[in-house]
Amino acid sequence: MIVKEVTSNNTINENDIVLTGDRPTGCLHLGHYIGSLQNRVILQNTVNDKKKCFVFIADVQGLSDNFATPEKVKKNVVEVCKDYLSVGLDPAKSTIFIQSLIPELFELTVYYMNLITVARLERCPTVKAELQTKSFATSVPSGFLNYPVSQAADITAFKSTAIPVGEDQKPVLEISNEIVNRFNNTYNTNVLKECKPILSDVPRLVGIDGLAKASKSLGNAIMLCDDSETLKQKIFSMYTDPNHINVSDPGKVEGNVVFTYLDAFYENKEEIEDLKAQYRKGGLGDVYLKNLLYKILDEKLTPIREKRLLLKEDYIYSVLIEGSKEAREVAKQTLNEVREAIGIVYK
Amino acid sequence: MIVKEVTSNNTINENDIVLTGDRPTGCLHLGHYIGSLQNRVILQNTVNDKKKCFVFIADVQGLSDNFATPEKVKKNVVEVCKDYLSVGLDPAKSTIFIQSLIPELFELTVYYMNLITVARLERCPTVKAELQTKSFATSVPSGFLNYPVSQAADITAFKSTAIPVGEDQKPVLEISNEIVNRFNNTYNTNVLKECKPILSDVPRLVGIDGLAKASKSLGNAIMLCDDSETLKQKIFSMYTDPNHINVSDPGKVEGNVVFTYLDAFYENKEEIEDLKAQYRKGGLGDVYLKNLLYKILDEKLTPIREKRLLLKEDYIYSVLIEGSKEAREVAKQTLNEVREAIGIVYK
Repeated sequence: MIVKEVTSNNTINENDIVLTGDRPTGCLHLGHYIGSLQNRVILQNTVNDKKKCFVFIADVQGLSDNFATPEKVKKNVVEVCKDYLSVGLDPAKSTIFIQSLIPELFELTVYYMNLITVARLERCPTVKAELQTKSFATSVPSGFLNYPVSQAADITAFKSTAIPVGEDQKPVLEISNEIVNRFNNTYNTNVLKECKPILSDVPRLVGIDGLAKASKSLGNAIMLCDDSETLKQKIFSMYTDPNHINVSDPGKVEGNVVFTYLDAFYENKEEIEDLKAQYRKGGLGDVYLKNLLYKILDEKLTPIREKRLLLKEDYIYSVLIEGSKEAREVAKQTLNEVREAIGIVYK
Repeated sequence: MIVKEVTSNNTINENDIVLTGDRPTGCLHLGHYIGSLQNRVILQNTVNDKKKCFVFIADVQGLSDNFATPEKVKKNVVEVCKDYLSVGLDPAKSTIFIQSLIPELFELTVYYMNLITVARLERCPTVKAELQTKSFATSVPSGFLNYPVSQAADITAFKSTAIPVGEDQKPVLEISNEIVNRFNNTYNTNVLKECKPILSDVPRLVGIDGLAKASKSLGNAIMLCDDSETLKQKIFSMYTDPNHINVSDPGKVEGNVVFTYLDAFYENKEEIEDLKAQYRKGGLGDVYLKNLLYKILDEKLTPIREKRLLLKEDYIYSVLIEGSKEAREVAKQTLNEVREAIGIVYK
């Protein structure tokens, strides 16, 4: 059985084990929703086996560039999990866990660090690109440079084969597969499994300012937990066409954030085309479009927001602790196999 | 109470916690004996509290430059422990354990990697020097570059304050102390303790070839487990003075390995001075000196060798497994404090 509905680029099959996760450095927003959360819910329901679907909150990786603000990381472990459950991830169908509660991942990380060179990590395009957005200058913490190794530990601990990622994360998966091959060849084993990326075909969602991709830290993102009033304010502050001053003026659709969001979230594609034509010609006001977008997004976000409000911190922790216990059993088994393969099992 | 007998350079006091160890990459030799083992036995007997004296076999660190030959590492875990017990380290007075059986060390390593930059590790003179003796060329495994971080985990996990090392290892302890300070400052705590080096005042023992320091891999070392016949052969192949052809010829004492070893191992300093004078003048043969050195070393090594023969592998493992359990309790406690300080404890 080949499942095709996941993305247009990729397929998963019934033997695949899916792993996804987020750094808990902020609540999730519409960019996450459209780029990955939506897809994950589909994947979860397609796989329909919590032993084959792992979703984790990467607090250790979050610390690698937030080691001085751990309270932010800890707080967002809960927030991100709330976002997960609000959008439809289901602890009955996915094993949802906290990275740092799986100590086996640390041990795998240290073993794998022997199998990859510093130069190789420094050449990784994803690492390079992320370094440019950080304030490390030439002082890169070793933990940050090694996050692809930590990610290889996450992936392999659960024998995951299918990793939903953005295009930009592909080089990190390549490093993971290099480690897998080096390990299996060095220790003459097939304990570790290669993984493949499950690419989303949705482009990165632009921020409401139209300048950069939506991001909590830039303050230009619509958060899943924004209330209706905040949502409205953000939509009404969206960048449109600065030369479209009077309703009767012809307007530009390209780069107009309201249209970008309509394209991304409104299912009536025919109506969008009509609106674009009308906007280009002149006679269609921004306020009309913004009200339409508000209606659409508020409809989408209301059930998520309402579900979120029902989720108590105690319940969230119980989900995460239970999921972490289950995940740990799997990781323990893999670590045993890894130590057996290396040959450092002591009676 | 200040104990002064440990070394002439350093002192330990009753609050100190001692930690030492070796990579299990070969049996130990006379260079280890005179440079560190002897000293460790004195330290162990001075401290006389196994909760304050930790001796470990660094299999994980051994793997960092021997990941492709793990069987060598595993085999030598047993051999090194046999050497330990043969020279007088005592499981009743020292907690003797295997590094990889303390999973908490991996977790500490990963956290500490956030607190030290790649550049800082690359600048460490000890790392630089070791890299020159390895065949990594420009391809340094990340695990190797990060071994000072792993060492910081070893040191701090047991709150060790006194680390017997050679002069060349001091920069590694400096990195450990930097991590300690960075951690304590960042997380506003005093959980981690700084350590000080306990320097041995014995210079590195030269190999029997007189060319380099004694080392198992160069084949120029007298191993603690060498039998009497092998010992004799090695002593009789020692480099002396190539121009000292006839007994009556004047000979050179400087660079003459037999005299170096007599200086290191023969307690009768007066007799050594007489012999040197006679050798310089002429009339003293190498055979006489080599027989003397053989007698001295064989006397020293016989009880070690005999004790070694009595040590069965099963007993060695039981010592190491028991010691590792005890060590793990301490490391667990420290890790709890570390996680508490970072603030990533989940109920």
